[in-house]
Amino acid sequence: MSWTLSAADLPDLARGATLLGTGGGGDPYIGSKLVERVLGDREITILDPDDLDDDMFVIPTAQMGAPTVMVEKIPAGTEPTLALRTLEAHLGRTADATMPIECGGINSMIPLVVAAETGLPVVDADGMGRAFPELSMETFAVYGVNGSPLALAGERGEQVIIDTGADNRQMEWLARGITIRLGGVGHIAEYAMTGAEVKRTAVPRTISMALDLGRAIRIARDHHRPALDAIADTLAPTLYPHVRELFTGKVTDVERRTTEGFAKGRATITAFSTDETCEISFQNENLIARRGGEVVAIVPDLICVIEIESGEPITTEGLRYGQRVRVLGISTPEMMRTPDALAAFGPVAFGLSESFVPVESRD
Amino acid sequence: MSWTLSAADLPDLARGATLLGTGGGGDPYIGSKLVERVLGDREITILDPDDLDDDMFVIPTAQMGAPTVMVEKIPAGTEPTLALRTLEAHLGRTADATMPIECGGINSMIPLVVAAETGLPVVDADGMGRAFPELSMETFAVYGVNGSPLALAGERGEQVIIDTGADNRQMEWLARGITIRLGGVGHIAEYAMTGAEVKRTAVPRTISMALDLGRAIRIARDHHRPALDAIADTLAPTLYPHVRELFTGKVTDVERRTTEGFAKGRATITAFSTDETCEISFQNENLIARRGGEVVAIVPDLICVIEIESGEPITTEGLRYGQRVRVLGISTPEMMRTPDALAAFGPVAFGLSESFVPVESRD
Repeated sequence: MSWTLSAADLPDLARGATLLGTGGGGDPYIGSKLVERVLGDREITILDPDDLDDDMFVIPTAQMGAPTVMVEKIPAGTEPTLALRTLEAHLGRTADATMPIECGGINSMIPLVVAAETGLPVVDADGMGRAFPELSMETFAVYGVNGSPLALAGERGEQVIIDTGADNRQMEWLARGITIRLGGVGHIAEYAMTGAEVKRTAVPRTISMALDLGRAIRIARDHHRPALDAIADTLAPTLYPHVRELFTGKVTDVERRTTEGFAKGRATITAFSTDETCEISFQNENLIARRGGEVVAIVPDLICVIEIESGEPITTEGLRYGQRVRVLGISTPEMMRTPDALAAFGPVAFGLSESFVPVESRD
Repeated sequence: MSWTLSAADLPDLARGATLLGTGGGGDPYIGSKLVERVLGDREITILDPDDLDDDMFVIPTAQMGAPTVMVEKIPAGTEPTLALRTLEAHLGRTADATMPIECGGINSMIPLVVAAETGLPVVDADGMGRAFPELSMETFAVYGVNGSPLALAGERGEQVIIDTGADNRQMEWLARGITIRLGGVGHIAEYAMTGAEVKRTAVPRTISMALDLGRAIRIARDHHRPALDAIADTLAPTLYPHVRELFTGKVTDVERRTTEGFAKGRATITAFSTDETCEISFQNENLIARRGGEVVAIVPDLICVIEIESGEPITTEGLRYGQRVRVLGISTPEMMRTPDALAAFGPVAFGLSESFVPVESRD
């Protein structure tokens, strides 16, 4: 069922999207402020994927770059719509809707900026079911939709179109090169597809899920109830039913560098009363969590860090020495765990030698 | 007057284009072999710029990259035509002719590859009047034609379109980023313009001049006559009337690195009978020549190194310890020495603190 979203929903959506960002995806707070400014007191129509006509034309929109740069380089707000218009002109076809390419982080917000500016509806679905660092890491791609042609817009009105045919990794490689030369952030429109393709390839209802998660964490905090319980209850009826507490402790070390257009590094969390540690490695997003050296969760399952007191999710660039945190593992949908999906965004896609093991199977 | 070019002309054209490459521009020998293979025993029509209809549509084509890489990464040959077709599709207009963007080095040949493949004529003119390392260093740009939109094609069929409006330096910056990510070489179509714009902004008759130079050097060698005299005689009636011998000696040091997509470095030449030296600094092309520390020629004037015995021009990547060489300074046309032209491709554009002084005024 389709529904409408107003500015009042944005703080909850941002909170949920930060959780689904699994440490990366860029801070959605900045994106939510962009949406708020453009939207005013109007509403955005959110389309349930089941309601899409098969021949409807959907152009997803997003921001591309290292989250560490995104935080400091605020977009003007018009770039994602310019990217959409550039792709429309190139294809000679106008979009009936836009859609997120990932439901975590700032890219939960960018399609809403486009919607607020253009009046287009937004499809309640995405291509990552979380956040991932590369444009080729999409269920769209796994199930046969090409990312190309991709349109990229810069803050000074630069327009770039990249077409690498069916080679989505080469598209990512070239678009990343442009993004780096634009100062670390670009705005893109890519994976243009029909309604039928959305239904076949997208992870459904992830905007509404993010909104539900953010609202549940807030209400739990207001009622002095653990965020973990609220998150587990919210996810139980979704495609993400398994939620596990992987570790609890204090952030004792963070190593982070922005390199090749990514934020890479690792964080160490030490238990409160023992010297047991949990180490999380990330490339924009959290990739693998080890407890006492043993893997307890691995990509594409979600590894999320939340602050114990407030339940607020913490991004990799927000990690600070001394934070008291809980590390959660959340199962991803089955369509994200097939062999083809794991080849695109499983451990091997990040150069990890460990195999994927579902977070729930470690019980 | 328009004329035709056949495969038999290519060795002379390559030799002349190497001289006009002023050390850079990539080795035209490889390009001439590509033309030869595609052309067979057909001929290419070369259009004199004065013969162009004002509303004729011309799309220049070129190769982009570091000469050090070009030498090792031979193009398939179809990329420049793909770049032309990509730009035609983007603009919704087909080209009536192609044209070089520079008359030195491999880019004297790339438009001929396109002509041989498509049957299009080639305009006898270019936008650099020599070779320069960056796409914004064009008389086209100096006199008001935008490089954007630029189309770039890769060896695996990648197609990229870059539009930075009137900002040709940003176009260069982004296209260079793509070229680096394509492995160091890309093929481009850019500076699309009308016949009227060609007549207003291009350096005229530089293909025929390169061919005349290459032929004159060969004939001089066959007649045991100094190449310097042949070059001076050939250039006397052209827009490049002043030819000076700057130094004669032996190459005693070459320092060269490929960085940021360019070949940068310096060469030292030591006199045969004294310890006097001449030092040439280059960024793809030779930029400045100093004799005993004093500047004797500076960009945009041409600084060319030829082998004493054969008269063959030597590129920066061909410089070797022990070569016996003559260093020549050649004056560039007046349209390349205006304040706007010097801002685009004079000393300041290369970060040099020295001012431009015409090579002939140092007599």
